[in-house]
Amino acid sequence: MRPEIELDQLCVVLVATRNPLNIGAAARAMSNFGFSRLRVVNPYATAFREARSAVGASGLLARAEEYKTVAEAVADCTLVVGTTAVGPRNLQHPIKSLPQATHFIRKQLRSGRTALLFGSEKRGLSNRDFSHCNWLMRIPTLEDHRSMNLGQAVAVCLYELIRDGKAIKRERKQEIITAGELERITTVLLDVLKSSGYLDLRKIASSEEKIRRLVRRMKLPKGDAESWLGMLRQILWKLKAGEKSH
Amino acid sequence: MRPEIELDQLCVVLVATRNPLNIGAAARAMSNFGFSRLRVVNPYATAFREARSAVGASGLLARAEEYKTVAEAVADCTLVVGTTAVGPRNLQHPIKSLPQATHFIRKQLRSGRTALLFGSEKRGLSNRDFSHCNWLMRIPTLEDHRSMNLGQAVAVCLYELIRDGKAIKRERKQEIITAGELERITTVLLDVLKSSGYLDLRKIASSEEKIRRLVRRMKLPKGDAESWLGMLRQILWKLKAGEKSH
Repeated sequence: MRPEIELDQLCVVLVATRNPLNIGAAARAMSNFGFSRLRVVNPYATAFREARSAVGASGLLARAEEYKTVAEAVADCTLVVGTTAVGPRNLQHPIKSLPQATHFIRKQLRSGRTALLFGSEKRGLSNRDFSHCNWLMRIPTLEDHRSMNLGQAVAVCLYELIRDGKAIKRERKQEIITAGELERITTVLLDVLKSSGYLDLRKIASSEEKIRRLVRRMKLPKGDAESWLGMLRQILWKLKAGEKSH
Repeated sequence: MRPEIELDQLCVVLVATRNPLNIGAAARAMSNFGFSRLRVVNPYATAFREARSAVGASGLLARAEEYKTVAEAVADCTLVVGTTAVGPRNLQHPIKSLPQATHFIRKQLRSGRTALLFGSEKRGLSNRDFSHCNWLMRIPTLEDHRSMNLGQAVAVCLYELIRDGKAIKRERKQEIITAGELERITTVLLDVLKSSGYLDLRKIASSEEKIRRLVRRMKLPKGDAESWLGMLRQILWKLKAGEKSH
């Protein structure tokens, strides 16, 4: 079965994976269901090396791309989705059930690249990782047995994505802003907020994540990114000029 | 989430499993999705012993039942289903797609016990094993990457079984921001842009409209309006402070 969604537009992103077997298992599920883009962020160095050199390691694994940060790994994606087993009440992010989520992702894949993030075996994704996500999707595990094996979680999510294999027609959609552009906006906005004293008033670390989430939540048309960046840069310049004159 | 099918009536039956990690992985997926009856047929003796004694092995694994033959393992079941990744043309058995199959199984579980058979890592189920099955279900893998990791295959099948367990709750619709709130944001943003000199660089009248349109084009969740207003006000205050000091 070869579903007609643009499988090649989906990037499976493994963040801080520890166990090489899990990287291999993720790659295997990807092959089973017809996905090919694997990215790893900051894996335990030996884990990635071992996974790549394992007997029978696939071409997919050999072609996997390594990144230092989540921001870099998702920069070319127009939709970034985090996976979690935690219930909605503990999260500050919009959250969708797996079937709902894949419905959205399948639509999105027609017009742009989507990153699907999986966290480490021990802790899952951090709040910092989540702050790069547009929204989260929840695998429906039991309350008291939430934590899934990483390879199994990847397999279940990818299965759900190809499950309905229905022909999805390619159609031209409004161009969507990439995560890289959003991050550029976030960076300048953060500078502005620091310069203006806004961030000093609050605890910095969690505030940065809060700001990142705020920017992801507003839906910005691609064509407007430069306008917003231009405004922010001018504001920043003026704030800095004000500082100097003191 | 606790789906409303009789999960306890489903037996996961692992036939001739070699790798203890896979027995453990199957058990973990069962816990994740709320199943509890694990049966093993003729496992490599050490595999089963190791899996049971593994650190963190679950009660589920400790209660797993061991059988010598498939016949004995499924004797109390009213429906026996084999799993396979092979396409229909190579099999003499009726075969259903995974979503179809689970639909039948869920109905069946109300009235009797069902066995779900998984074969060994190397060969899957044999024709002899199949002969104990009422029908087979096929996991929709690619032709040229058929063979799934055992733990992942179990996870995908069990996920499909609980997938529709509950009416998927409709997401609460995102509350939509009012035009009034958008205009408040626009007003402060315009002040900021004037203070920063951004608007001086362009023709004012049409620029104001352009900014208003920009703000309308981004889709802001209602709950975020106050955060953005707070940021903008702080920036404005700082810009004004800079001006005064000149």
